[in-house]
Amino acid sequence: MAETVIHFGIIGCAEIARKVSRAINLAPNAHPSAVASRSVEKAAAFAKANNFPPDAKIYGSYESLLDDPDIDAVYVPLPTSLHVKWAPLVAQKKKHILLEKPVGLNVGEFDKILDACEANGVQIMDGTMWMHNPRTDKMREFLADKERFGELRTIHSIFTFAGGEDFLKNDIRVKPDLDGLGALGDTGWYSIRAILWATDYELPKTVVALRGPVLNEAGVILACGASLHWEDGKVAILHCSFLTHLTMFVTAIGTKGTLHVDDFVIPFNEKEAPYTTSSKSWFNELVTGWEPLPSQNMVFVDLPQEACMVREFARLVGNIKVNGAKPDQTWPTRSRKTQLILDAVKTSIERGFEPVEIAN
Amino acid sequence: MAETVIHFGIIGCAEIARKVSRAINLAPNAHPSAVASRSVEKAAAFAKANNFPPDAKIYGSYESLLDDPDIDAVYVPLPTSLHVKWAPLVAQKKKHILLEKPVGLNVGEFDKILDACEANGVQIMDGTMWMHNPRTDKMREFLADKERFGELRTIHSIFTFAGGEDFLKNDIRVKPDLDGLGALGDTGWYSIRAILWATDYELPKTVVALRGPVLNEAGVILACGASLHWEDGKVAILHCSFLTHLTMFVTAIGTKGTLHVDDFVIPFNEKEAPYTTSSKSWFNELVTGWEPLPSQNMVFVDLPQEACMVREFARLVGNIKVNGAKPDQTWPTRSRKTQLILDAVKTSIERGFEPVEIAN
Repeated sequence: MAETVIHFGIIGCAEIARKVSRAINLAPNAHPSAVASRSVEKAAAFAKANNFPPDAKIYGSYESLLDDPDIDAVYVPLPTSLHVKWAPLVAQKKKHILLEKPVGLNVGEFDKILDACEANGVQIMDGTMWMHNPRTDKMREFLADKERFGELRTIHSIFTFAGGEDFLKNDIRVKPDLDGLGALGDTGWYSIRAILWATDYELPKTVVALRGPVLNEAGVILACGASLHWEDGKVAILHCSFLTHLTMFVTAIGTKGTLHVDDFVIPFNEKEAPYTTSSKSWFNELVTGWEPLPSQNMVFVDLPQEACMVREFARLVGNIKVNGAKPDQTWPTRSRKTQLILDAVKTSIERGFEPVEIAN
Repeated sequence: MAETVIHFGIIGCAEIARKVSRAINLAPNAHPSAVASRSVEKAAAFAKANNFPPDAKIYGSYESLLDDPDIDAVYVPLPTSLHVKWAPLVAQKKKHILLEKPVGLNVGEFDKILDACEANGVQIMDGTMWMHNPRTDKMREFLADKERFGELRTIHSIFTFAGGEDFLKNDIRVKPDLDGLGALGDTGWYSIRAILWATDYELPKTVVALRGPVLNEAGVILACGASLHWEDGKVAILHCSFLTHLTMFVTAIGTKGTLHVDDFVIPFNEKEAPYTTSSKSWFNELVTGWEPLPSQNMVFVDLPQEACMVREFARLVGNIKVNGAKPDQTWPTRSRKTQLILDAVKTSIERGFEPVEIAN
């Protein structure tokens, strides 16, 4: 049976929408059918530059795209502050939502979006691409292996990049009225997600921001860190920044093994995704070397991770459209947990680095 | 001119003394001349098992070794709690001291040792072997390179290993009366040193322990973490543990580059020491890959790092013995700073994770 092809519309011509347009083109069950901008010219130029097919529709307003009955799903790359307005409107038009991260300025906003999705029976998924890289499942297998990895005890995740002068002055991610969460909402989102992923989405009991976060004049976070603490003693540490050189890693340490990945958000190369594992390593007799050495693993990636994301989202949408399935709850639950931790880090900073309890 | 050969004695037959005995044998300017244990039989067996030459002297008490006029320098691998007693006795006998880490149970103890060294004009150096690996200087060159690395902003360092049931019950490193600092004094020492090394030994302004340290029934630290904060905004995070799989890394991030090393304390292989650098990396145009990729670097190591350590210590001792030089202050200053931070982490834990200011 041929797979149902889902017709996508995009509202807003953000930079990130270029990459997702390509992904919609690449995913076998997705079709780029429309793009909307606040100007028709901008939308037309975007469609042309991003290889939309000749029959793709060009809209000069988001509302007109949402009224198009041929569109099944809408990709929303708008600034975070606009999510709480536009995502519910998309849902009310019975269109499924692929929503950029962070999903809202706080979990309260995201709950409004979730309510709208539930009321209208539409699927929602956030745009965390690396979750869909085939490497991610391979790494998960290692973490779940009690023999090779044991019990998870510690996770460290960092994602930083040096934004540069222009970025720090003009990018929407440093503007309080657009993406007011700054580095925490951008790179921090990925590290928080990585930590939750490693724990199989078990929420921590307590979140404590590290001292010394860097905020810009408008109060937007440019760099910060936090430690997360679970009831069973697991500890995670995250650090995010717009102020230091491009670095991203996850190190997850269990009682018997260690996982390390240096390019978890954006792989060095989209066709090959590396990661390192070690298991029951110890020192040699005179403590002058290791036995066994860590293993370098490589996952070959046929379809870029963002196209895997579109394919998975379109599969869920197709299942609703054709089979009358209920919207999947796995992905929105993960989005909500990520936002919950993000909120807690921000609250802890605001409260002078006091621990913030996570209500489960 | 042939290099002066320094005659070493060892007091105590700890496991680590086996490795250092080999290093004394390998270093061109060092000679294993005597070993002392509380039993002559144990000392004799140690000398035999560790390839001491036939003329090496065997002593049934530490005092008798210290009275031997042929011994220039003494390696002290005794449990930490005994350092403050024995190291000053070694100094009073005008013998130079290679002292295992941590150098004391607190900086006050180490200051007593330093006073004794100064009063007697003897050299002291701690046993942090990785400092002497040729890789360490290569990595330092990268960190000092303003063009490739920029300004240091963040350092993360972890050193953990899974001690196992027997270790957690019987090892001296979990006994309050022997090595009362536990994981902080053992693996934590190395991470603290790595952080100080990365900052070129600039002391932080504030140290804050992370919540959730694990202590055994006797109150010895089995796992803990801390963040360190400098006046200029630099931040470092460390984590040490006896409870999770063998993992050790340093990631130092500057404004333009990143350094990462996965085996900083004990290289995977004593003849080759790898490290990764990246400089001015950014994403490609569509943010589907990195340009340039990080570089894998390898330093070939002729002499094992612990033998490099002995060679450097013996060189300093030789310079005092032959040329009447003053004892070097660089190494003891580094030891003291490391102990100072270690003390601050412990104090912060004891004070309920309050920040501890570092007096400079």
